[in-house]
Amino acid sequence: MNKYMRMAINEARKGIRNGDGGPFGAVIVKDGKVIAKAHNQVIKNSDATCHGEMMAIHKASKKLHSFDLSGCEIYTTGEPCPMCLSALLWANISKIYYGCNVLDTENIGFRDAKFYELSKAEHRNELVVELDRKACLKLYEEYRKIKDKTPY
Amino acid sequence: MNKYMRMAINEARKGIRNGDGGPFGAVIVKDGKVIAKAHNQVIKNSDATCHGEMMAIHKASKKLHSFDLSGCEIYTTGEPCPMCLSALLWANISKIYYGCNVLDTENIGFRDAKFYELSKAEHRNELVVELDRKACLKLYEEYRKIKDKTPY
Repeated sequence: MNKYMRMAINEARKGIRNGDGGPFGAVIVKDGKVIAKAHNQVIKNSDATCHGEMMAIHKASKKLHSFDLSGCEIYTTGEPCPMCLSALLWANISKIYYGCNVLDTENIGFRDAKFYELSKAEHRNELVVELDRKACLKLYEEYRKIKDKTPY
Repeated sequence: MNKYMRMAINEARKGIRNGDGGPFGAVIVKDGKVIAKAHNQVIKNSDATCHGEMMAIHKASKKLHSFDLSGCEIYTTGEPCPMCLSALLWANISKIYYGCNVLDTENIGFRDAKFYELSKAEHRNELVVELDRKACLKLYEEYRKIKDKTPY
């Protein structure tokens, strides 16, 4: 099997044996070099955002001193949830290799598949409400006018 | 205007004037009490995941010592991107009030709208690849058998 996926599985196994969170490990690789290894720490950190991929992005960003992880690939034991997928897109990760798919992940009790459904605009009206758009547009306008911004 | 949205705007303004990141501030409220205020720090922290809502979740989770933010509402200057929306769902936030919508956010140079498109399964085949599913299913099975797990 793939050696980076094996590392991701080992990371995940360490995590579940410690009770840190779900069975999700992730390894970020650039030019054949491991940049970051991490696993899910939702329970350990008491923070719902601490998925394996997110922890790996944090570590890789710190190591490379950049929010831009272009040229990096990630190996992750479970197909990324919408949070992690979008985080990987924001970070410009170029390829995502996953082991189990979202339905496999649903089968062990996680809500990823449901959240993919909810992410579609037409299903989320009850949860998400627009408010004070005009005042916020003024803020956006102030931002737009700032020169020499760093795009991301 | 809504007082919590005003706080979110003020947070965002502080952030853009510091050069911390985009014009995105967020306030988490529970039973009328402000639990966390935060703003985008992607540039400041060199980390693509540091959106306003994510930073607010980190702070609220720390304050409440829990990954479960049930009963909390969030006020955010921009409609959450798929990463933040899903993070808010994982955290069980019960209501999301946003100012500008994703198209407004696209108009000031951000990729949220594009990422909503890419989050739909049928568009992401080139980026996301299955690998070593069987080995990962064994890991999932080990997790399934652990007794007294904390669900999240």
